Amino acid sequence: MEYTLGLDFGTGSVRACILDIHSGQMISTAICAFEGGIEGTYLDKNDPLLARQSPLEYLRSMEIAVKEAVSDFISNGRVVNDIIGIGVDATGSTPIPIKQNMSPLAALPEFKDNLNAYAWLWKDHTAIKEALEITKKADMQRPHYLAKCGGSYSSEWFWSKIWHCYNVDPKTFAAADSWMEQSDFIPATLAGIKDMYQVKRNICAAGHKAMFSDTWGGLPDKEFLTSLHPALAALRDRLYDAAYTFEETLGYLSEEWATRLGLPEGIPIAVGALDAHVGAIGAGVKDGVFVKIIGTSTCDIMAFPENLAPSDFPGVAGIVNGSVLPGYIGIEAGQAAVGDLLNWWVQHVLKKEADYHTILTDKASKLRAGESGLLALDWNNGNRNILGDQQLSGLILGQTLATTDFEIYRALIESTAFGALKIIQLVESQGVKINEVIATGGIGHKNEMFMQIYADVIGYPVRLVENPQTVAIGAAIMAAVAAKKDSQGFETIENAVNKLSVASDKTYFPVKEEHAVYKHLFKLYSQLHNTFGDSYEGGLYNVMKELIEIRVKCASR
Amino acid sequence: MEYTLGLDFGTGSVRACILDIHSGQMISTAICAFEGGIEGTYLDKNDPLLARQSPLEYLRSMEIAVKEAVSDFISNGRVVNDIIGIGVDATGSTPIPIKQNMSPLAALPEFKDNLNAYAWLWKDHTAIKEALEITKKADMQRPHYLAKCGGSYSSEWFWSKIWHCYNVDPKTFAAADSWMEQSDFIPATLAGIKDMYQVKRNICAAGHKAMFSDTWGGLPDKEFLTSLHPALAALRDRLYDAAYTFEETLGYLSEEWATRLGLPEGIPIAVGALDAHVGAIGAGVKDGVFVKIIGTSTCDIMAFPENLAPSDFPGVAGIVNGSVLPGYIGIEAGQAAVGDLLNWWVQHVLKKEADYHTILTDKASKLRAGESGLLALDWNNGNRNILGDQQLSGLILGQTLATTDFEIYRALIESTAFGALKIIQLVESQGVKINEVIATGGIGHKNEMFMQIYADVIGYPVRLVENPQTVAIGAAIMAAVAAKKDSQGFETIENAVNKLSVASDKTYFPVKEEHAVYKHLFKLYSQLHNTFGDSYEGGLYNVMKELIEIRVKCASR
Repeated sequence: MEYTLGLDFGTGSVRACILDIHSGQMISTAICAFEGGIEGTYLDKNDPLLARQSPLEYLRSMEIAVKEAVSDFISNGRVVNDIIGIGVDATGSTPIPIKQNMSPLAALPEFKDNLNAYAWLWKDHTAIKEALEITKKADMQRPHYLAKCGGSYSSEWFWSKIWHCYNVDPKTFAAADSWMEQSDFIPATLAGIKDMYQVKRNICAAGHKAMFSDTWGGLPDKEFLTSLHPALAALRDRLYDAAYTFEETLGYLSEEWATRLGLPEGIPIAVGALDAHVGAIGAGVKDGVFVKIIGTSTCDIMAFPENLAPSDFPGVAGIVNGSVLPGYIGIEAGQAAVGDLLNWWVQHVLKKEADYHTILTDKASKLRAGESGLLALDWNNGNRNILGDQQLSGLILGQTLATTDFEIYRALIESTAFGALKIIQLVESQGVKINEVIATGGIGHKNEMFMQIYADVIGYPVRLVENPQTVAIGAAIMAAVAAKKDSQGFETIENAVNKLSVASDKTYFPVKEEHAVYKHLFKLYSQLHNTFGDSYEGGLYNVMKELIEIRVKCASR
Repeated sequence: MEYTLGLDFGTGSVRACILDIHSGQMISTAICAFEGGIEGTYLDKNDPLLARQSPLEYLRSMEIAVKEAVSDFISNGRVVNDIIGIGVDATGSTPIPIKQNMSPLAALPEFKDNLNAYAWLWKDHTAIKEALEITKKADMQRPHYLAKCGGSYSSEWFWSKIWHCYNVDPKTFAAADSWMEQSDFIPATLAGIKDMYQVKRNICAAGHKAMFSDTWGGLPDKEFLTSLHPALAALRDRLYDAAYTFEETLGYLSEEWATRLGLPEGIPIAVGALDAHVGAIGAGVKDGVFVKIIGTSTCDIMAFPENLAPSDFPGVAGIVNGSVLPGYIGIEAGQAAVGDLLNWWVQHVLKKEADYHTILTDKASKLRAGESGLLALDWNNGNRNILGDQQLSGLILGQTLATTDFEIYRALIESTAFGALKIIQLVESQGVKINEVIATGGIGHKNEMFMQIYADVIGYPVRLVENPQTVAIGAAIMAAVAAKKDSQGFETIENAVNKLSVASDKTYFPVKEEHAVYKHLFKLYSQLHNTFGDSYEGGLYNVMKELIEIRVKCASR
């Protein structure tokens, strides 16, 4: 009997799950919500962009969730000595200011009420100015940095946030010896590491969020960081020079945490990873499979064997060696608004409650492809991929005087499916073969029509993997891979994923007739896409930009 | 003392008003709603396109309204002998099947319950197929016919309706000796004319609705009509060869109607006209003034002295000699959806009651030009002018995830103002000078923001003329012109209009700063307009067409 423990830190809670790595059966699971703030997140009523969490709360809630999962595990006659590995995933970029001894700054009495000393949650957007400045500087000085992250550096990411901390609270910045991603901080804490320099940082967060790449010697170079601010260049020395995949063991469960969790000391702990990537593992990512994590936005994850992967190419959000699976090139792409686009329509425009999604879906599901005569661009939050352009905006056309709210709702869903197909076609154009799409995340489970539209638009079977433990199971798979490395040598990563990933609830197959219509509509979508979005060819490329210029000027009048 | 009586037949009622043609003062007015059907209009619950009215009800309600106005007139010590003329306007194209003796078919016992024997109200859309066929045939055989009516013949117009009657009810068609517009039938009845061949038909309805033009010898030629149907060619002989302006006297008040109305026999009655054109007269149409009648759709009316008027040019709905003012070239243009576009948004999409217009307007009026970042095309009902293309559709772009319902509402209003400016610029491009815009109709009175946006977009002062009697006063002005012709010779038509037309409630002047922003937005609107709407240059010209093709195909699957 061999089991692993997966720990999945989401935005509002931590989930623990214990997986039988021979049968693939999930033995026990427990979840504990974060306390404090609003559903575990501290907000600032004067600044809607701020979102912070307590690193100490991460540890408290983790203890509760693990103890409950272990207690359940034991009650069935199993023994904790059979738990041979621990894997951890977390949100990101969620950097935490720390002392050299790995204490989070927030643990010090003088910082206990200072939100700048807390974890800067992935969705904190306070660093918009810094992100723009980083993008601008990189665009001029280090365009290759941007090439790996889709053309613009985000306010959600590592350097933007840390720089913003320096700008608004230099004292806190000065008190921090370093900054560490949540996905590194948790496993390192479990391993009892007491020196920040000893922590194996994960390539997933480093590569996708901190501009880390071996091709340019790790983190951004000092000259570039100095051009942002000398304080950032100085910080570089107190960060890291290498980044690791979860195949590596980060450390072993410490005596202290073994006691707190009711587990034996010394269990190997895998290097961490980001939740989206780990969710893809739990959902069964592999060569030829395109995983879509569809929520408010969509995150696409692919993993290609190094010999089959395309070389660097523009149009995706990130191409990072080993970021999804060790030995594979990880590709991340995404769409800036999917669930958010539908919520915009229902809440912002129609001013209805969430249950109106169901009402609109019921009506819209009676429509067939092309029946409404509508076509939309899914750009209300800009286009993350393949255009990488935040200055694009939404578009709906084809309206008559009889056009209804539910027809527009369906057209918006279709627009996101067309956007998804654009990304798939880009990846395929690099010589990569895709056979199947896996959809996971919040939406597919709730909306059959949404899933069928995706299958009909994309033209591939779309497998729905909707187990709420998918990400935690992914973390347990990571643990299995890392742990085996350390003992008797394991079967391949591919086998682990194949064997242990979550089975799909349902596969949606394209309906031939609908797909044929969507092929035609996709041609028209592509025409709009290029005319409004292509800076070289687009006859209307100026329109959305100038509207933003006019709006910005108007605000300053 | 000299007075004239104006009679304005609207869609639901008839209004009488008595005007002092020396002081310009309106002495008395009365209105009588039509009875029968739904607010005077007979509908068919199995066919939402059908809308008919009873010609007998026109006469009954007219009698009541006039008697009330006259009684009020007399009560102030005035005498009916001072009423020296009668003018009548009516809706159109509203053809009525008649017998040669001028009895409407509906007056015969065997047709009293047959709606096909009633007046076919302007908004009856049962003849869509016939209109398409007429357009198709004219496009191939007589393109010059279409040139004068904006490129397509409407289901609302004379020939479409009559042909449809033949197709669905050949018995009624056969029983009719001829068909006559409501705007001819009423004054002819008042004049006691008992032979349909003696009625002077008005050029306004003939030219704009029945493809009548002196340049091709009157009504469409027999060869063309035969290609539609021989029955229509045969009917041509029972219609008319000449059409007249309201400067002409159609006849004199008959003994019968003098008695019924309480007026002296023999008062001159002007040739009739259509309500929109007469509204423009009441509002003060003249050289250099562009009159917009803004309701569910917008009708634009201009009148240019023959020597200053542009020659035939494409892009307007009709260019008819004398249709607005005798001796002037009348130009009619229009936008297919204005109030309808706003109603679509409020009722069809947001699913709110009419009072939500006020709520949206209150919020939207706090926005400045360009602030929302939105831009729309006002084509939900196609583009009547300047493109004359019913296969265009609506478009909204610039949406973010924060875009609200009231921002879109304002963008829709702005789109109609941009559409209005397109028409104005087209007319100006023909060498015609426009100094001022007059807005009348239902919307301006209710919505100050709407008016200000129009002034700011167009860049000319926009005078609001919102007197509900404007059209009836226009009819009284017609009467003054026609009557004077017959007695001592009158001052010029221009003077009559200048002196007697309704004063404006308020003039909206362009705000310089807003106009500058709208100039920029209009450039972007024009880019969209041409890219989607121009068959020669438009890179996206195919998009809206193909969406309709796809929709039509879908309906037949």
